[in-house]
Amino acid sequence: MIYLDNSATTKPDPSVLESFQQASQRFFANPSSIHHLGGEAEKMLSKARKQAAELLNVHQDEIVFTSGGTEGNNLAIKGTALKHQGRGKHIITTEIEHSSVDETFQGLSQLGFDVTYLPVDENGVVSVEDVRKAIRHDTILISVMHVNNELGSIQPVKEIGDIAKKYPKLFFHVDNVQGFGKVPLELAESGIDFCTISGHKIHGLKGTGLLYVKKGATLFPLFHGGDQEHGLRSGTENLAGAVSLVKALRLTKERQEAGTQHMLELQQELYNKLSGMNGVEVNTPKEAAPHIINISVPGLKPEVIIHTLGEQDIYISTKSACSSKQTDESKILAACSKSSEVASSALRISLSYDTAAEEISVFLNALEKAIHQLKAVLE
Amino acid sequence: MIYLDNSATTKPDPSVLESFQQASQRFFANPSSIHHLGGEAEKMLSKARKQAAELLNVHQDEIVFTSGGTEGNNLAIKGTALKHQGRGKHIITTEIEHSSVDETFQGLSQLGFDVTYLPVDENGVVSVEDVRKAIRHDTILISVMHVNNELGSIQPVKEIGDIAKKYPKLFFHVDNVQGFGKVPLELAESGIDFCTISGHKIHGLKGTGLLYVKKGATLFPLFHGGDQEHGLRSGTENLAGAVSLVKALRLTKERQEAGTQHMLELQQELYNKLSGMNGVEVNTPKEAAPHIINISVPGLKPEVIIHTLGEQDIYISTKSACSSKQTDESKILAACSKSSEVASSALRISLSYDTAAEEISVFLNALEKAIHQLKAVLE
Repeated sequence: MIYLDNSATTKPDPSVLESFQQASQRFFANPSSIHHLGGEAEKMLSKARKQAAELLNVHQDEIVFTSGGTEGNNLAIKGTALKHQGRGKHIITTEIEHSSVDETFQGLSQLGFDVTYLPVDENGVVSVEDVRKAIRHDTILISVMHVNNELGSIQPVKEIGDIAKKYPKLFFHVDNVQGFGKVPLELAESGIDFCTISGHKIHGLKGTGLLYVKKGATLFPLFHGGDQEHGLRSGTENLAGAVSLVKALRLTKERQEAGTQHMLELQQELYNKLSGMNGVEVNTPKEAAPHIINISVPGLKPEVIIHTLGEQDIYISTKSACSSKQTDESKILAACSKSSEVASSALRISLSYDTAAEEISVFLNALEKAIHQLKAVLE
Repeated sequence: MIYLDNSATTKPDPSVLESFQQASQRFFANPSSIHHLGGEAEKMLSKARKQAAELLNVHQDEIVFTSGGTEGNNLAIKGTALKHQGRGKHIITTEIEHSSVDETFQGLSQLGFDVTYLPVDENGVVSVEDVRKAIRHDTILISVMHVNNELGSIQPVKEIGDIAKKYPKLFFHVDNVQGFGKVPLELAESGIDFCTISGHKIHGLKGTGLLYVKKGATLFPLFHGGDQEHGLRSGTENLAGAVSLVKALRLTKERQEAGTQHMLELQQELYNKLSGMNGVEVNTPKEAAPHIINISVPGLKPEVIIHTLGEQDIYISTKSACSSKQTDESKILAACSKSSEVASSALRISLSYDTAAEEISVFLNALEKAIHQLKAVLE
């Protein structure tokens, strides 16, 4: 199997699954129970939280374990909006966010919030100046992703953080689901108040994730209840999930430097070969995260190419999994001013640290052959 | 180990963990990916949903997989409130709900909703007549638990469902986290629009659960995004979690008849012995769910008894795990008009199908001895 859909999800690392299983068996008690077994579970949870904080170079009180990226994004955005609506109802985001941000903003506009959607340039990058200009006296939130999930374009979140710092009443959220482990991002002193990370995009388990919540930032919880997770995310803690997430975070951090260098080389190879391939247009800009390359093959339906490659046990995707069943045209590519033909014929190849050079060359040959054959049928 | 804190959480069944692990490895792809691997994962998810629906005797479109009971309760309550606030902002609940319902209502009152908290009688049971009288023209939601988590008292949700049926614009939510597998409850034709079930209370895994959402009922999602789970709960599906939950549901259903009969016998034994034990008052009413017995030992701090038993590897709890660290006095017992002394000295013994008669007799002896010794120290 040649799996090149790592931006949709990754194969869980066996040691991560092992951590999950061990913690589920050995520390099954409820961390809120006051007996000894509960205390042991709570100690293990604290340890996991501390380790997560160390790996992210933040404080342990700033870690909120969640059920994944979608929860993290919704909690940061709705939590800010519902908590701070008394101050103002203006919220800012971009035209190229993941559906879990985009749809959340749309949901909030149904509740009476006023949303500014910032455009991006042809490389899929938002302008820092546009962000600055969009801020009003009643703006309470800016949400900008770090790395775009379809294109791999990198957003200037560091610079936006510098602006956000100047507005103490304004919160800044970064969806770092695609960026973590691929493009470094320091959270401390960054001006970022909330940052979303997902487990299953980094060889962790589905149903796991965390939200960084800067000290002092307050939210209206999506889950009220027993006040777990500093009162921001109630519910009996998924301790085994948290432990497994920390394992995935650590493995990622340990391999990040060599892994991103390796992916960068594969991406360069893909870029060079695909740029020269007949009928292919490369959509990913030169400056991008190392694990994604987005292409279009105008005139061919992407699902047909995916099916043809699938028969050879090679797996790539159309745009993002979370919007892949909705419409044909990629909203992200349309926002980059790509033609409708290009935006409707996009394919995403996404790598992991484990992708082998050999797999890339088999994929490239298979793709070229598939395009040649499919075009021949159409002529 | 004698574990009598099954209402806080249960030990996961090894076969449930095994299901989780197998599904995580074999079906790791994103069910939303359009390639063959994604299709296989989606098929497995559909199968899990169909099986869950069959086990609950409802339609598969009525199953929403969640991260647990707290999410289910919050989704049903906030989702209804935020979606239907245009019709009215009056919502009804009781004084003895779990914190994930109680705190959610308190959160909504901060957002301008008008909450009626219904009292309970000395047995911890809400009056059907009180529910009927509380309904106003602007009432959009009633939320009443099936089985109380501290006392084990059973609420008349069937009768409340019959009332709710007469008000087509009003939604009825039942928190069945403590009831599932212990007290039968038919959902179809019940007047119940939403019903919460948690995995880890029935030997499933933490981080798993489901919300029954009756066909036609609409909600403002807590998680917007890729429109997974019929658009009510977006986010990459935790397929392994769903598969493991279905396994736990099935095991529970299969063992329910014999299991509840067994627990009833143990509970009767506990009831008889504890009623006659020096210094002990039994708080659980005679008519109750079979797995919980709540007692008070006035004059002794419950945590001291728990500690003493814990040293003998016997685990019981004070009130509910989700509120055990907040205040000394049980809100639930106070709502049943128990004295402050009784409400501050409560202990909960909670059983599972696997609790052995021998364990109960060891526990009873240990408790009697502990009370005797602790009282002697105080005299």
